[in-house]
Amino acid sequence: MKLQVTQENLTKALTTVGRVATSRGTLPVLANVLIKTTDNRLSISATNLDIAITHHIGSKISQEGSVTIPARLTSDFVASLPSGVIDLQLEETKLHITTDKYESTINGTVADDFPVMPKISSGNTWEIASQSLKSALQQVLPAASSDEARPVLTGVYIHTYNQKLYIVATDSYRLAEKEIGSHKGEVDLLIPAASLQELLRLIGDQDATVFVTHDDQQVQFKLTDTELVTRLIDGKYPDYRKLIPKAFNHQATLSRQDFVNITKVSSLFARESAGSVTLQLDKEANEISIRSIASQLGENMAAAEADVTANGSITLNSRYILDALNCIGGKQVIFSFNGKLEPCTVKDPNNKDYLHVIMPLKS
Amino acid sequence: MKLQVTQENLTKALTTVGRVATSRGTLPVLANVLIKTTDNRLSISATNLDIAITHHIGSKISQEGSVTIPARLTSDFVASLPSGVIDLQLEETKLHITTDKYESTINGTVADDFPVMPKISSGNTWEIASQSLKSALQQVLPAASSDEARPVLTGVYIHTYNQKLYIVATDSYRLAEKEIGSHKGEVDLLIPAASLQELLRLIGDQDATVFVTHDDQQVQFKLTDTELVTRLIDGKYPDYRKLIPKAFNHQATLSRQDFVNITKVSSLFARESAGSVTLQLDKEANEISIRSIASQLGENMAAAEADVTANGSITLNSRYILDALNCIGGKQVIFSFNGKLEPCTVKDPNNKDYLHVIMPLKS
Repeated sequence: MKLQVTQENLTKALTTVGRVATSRGTLPVLANVLIKTTDNRLSISATNLDIAITHHIGSKISQEGSVTIPARLTSDFVASLPSGVIDLQLEETKLHITTDKYESTINGTVADDFPVMPKISSGNTWEIASQSLKSALQQVLPAASSDEARPVLTGVYIHTYNQKLYIVATDSYRLAEKEIGSHKGEVDLLIPAASLQELLRLIGDQDATVFVTHDDQQVQFKLTDTELVTRLIDGKYPDYRKLIPKAFNHQATLSRQDFVNITKVSSLFARESAGSVTLQLDKEANEISIRSIASQLGENMAAAEADVTANGSITLNSRYILDALNCIGGKQVIFSFNGKLEPCTVKDPNNKDYLHVIMPLKS
Repeated sequence: MKLQVTQENLTKALTTVGRVATSRGTLPVLANVLIKTTDNRLSISATNLDIAITHHIGSKISQEGSVTIPARLTSDFVASLPSGVIDLQLEETKLHITTDKYESTINGTVADDFPVMPKISSGNTWEIASQSLKSALQQVLPAASSDEARPVLTGVYIHTYNQKLYIVATDSYRLAEKEIGSHKGEVDLLIPAASLQELLRLIGDQDATVFVTHDDQQVQFKLTDTELVTRLIDGKYPDYRKLIPKAFNHQATLSRQDFVNITKVSSLFARESAGSVTLQLDKEANEISIRSIASQLGENMAAAEADVTANGSITLNSRYILDALNCIGGKQVIFSFNGKLEPCTVKDPNNKDYLHVIMPLKS
């Protein structure tokens, strides 16, 4: 292998894939990246066996080849070089990286040691705009579980229902559902939330089309120069639709920022009580108030103006309220509930395609 | 106690002193701040028994009083409140904090529980401009030791020598000395580096006069609205002047940024060898080169243009080079050494009042 690349492109490629390379596993080669010449481009890949990411960059190739090299050292090293052209030359498994004033040799291992990058040969492919996928994922990922005891809930459920595409996550304490719009064909994918966090990072500010291809085992997301392949989670997603209340006895409409402020203040006093805060709707005063008690430290009451339909109160985890308000965006929110033990919802009155459901705490 | 303060002032006061309050110690009250009315001002104090910080703010006092309240909760709470006037009212040891839409009660303890703030009644006082103290401390603090086995080296030595004031730190591997200029009277203070880190933070961007008052046990730094009192370290500082070489066989003058760049790159390959890199001066090539070897991962050579007086080489810890170059500032540096086992120095040719000495590694 002998080739030239720019420092900027190589740094970008190593940063893009490098986060997936891990030295914590039992397979030392997974701390490496695979670099390989293909069709006048250089491809850089890393995998942790759950996810594999490959990034392609243009390069001037005089001799084909491939090798695996330590991800972190190479990435840190190339990032420290001055910008401009870098020469890469492979001698057995030693990669020489040279510029005008810098000469390095990085000891690699033969490419055959590297796990075969998963390929999805046959399967459905559909498209989605990168920024609408990104904002949907940002709105649902906080509701996914990180508890491996119930693997199904550590996934994000992307599926079609009545010819529409939905993206959903729940950890059984709260649920976030985003409707993407109409979709031809059937989709039913349960994707590890951690893989989608990586996808979010890859999308970044890119405004492009994402091609999604999947079979029974795995799914690939293809961006302009980057591909991410992840395994799917095996299991049946809970039938969450029947948990969502259809009508509500109590509703408050208020400024989202006010709701954030009073919840934040109250949450400070709720640290001892696992975040427990009690919300009270007052129709006469046109007010929503939130109260928390820290037996040792003190207590707190904060209020905000709200348009209230009926008096009532409910006890929630303040962190879930803040997550919901953060996911929902927008200026106004409608906060709705029925009894003290039934799920409540947070919605944007001007944006019906996103729903956040929170289960109450026993008070 | 009954008074009014602005949210901005109270937040600033709590943030300023709060970092010193600690819940890790054995004395629970040290996680609190003492708030106290004095002469139409409110003073907020915290201490960890090594350092005590007091900050004064203006306030409209209708009734005098004092109490101690949890530092972190109060600070987080007040910071979350909207800006404007806050009412504070003490009822026994419960502090009510009220604004238009927020009501909180914070459970405190009687002020008598709080350790007495140390006072320096008699002692010398001298002055120094806050920004020149700040930059001197920034230039020497990285050389102080954090190893409690030799307490003397965990201090910064502020002293007079030949009618000049010097600020010095060393961990026995490197030494940094800053000359402040002529000074009347004698100063001989060994101050914990950790206390001076806090002082740095207090100074921030303030352009003011710092009044330094000290006796045998402690020293006080007084800024406009803030005082920091710290204990002194007991012990004799090493006679470091005799360790500084007077003349050098080998010198290289080069761009500081170039030196930083080649050292950074080389340090990546020196992780396995405790940062060990070998510097080589080449008079014929007008070059300084730096070489590091990671037996497992590879090796590296990086070079930069330099004005060299004589060929030679020396092995150093790359982290110490980077710290020195970071402390020294300026565009150019002179790097000087004698034998392979003698201390080398890094200086700014245009600024003779700062010196950084590094001990070599055995190579």
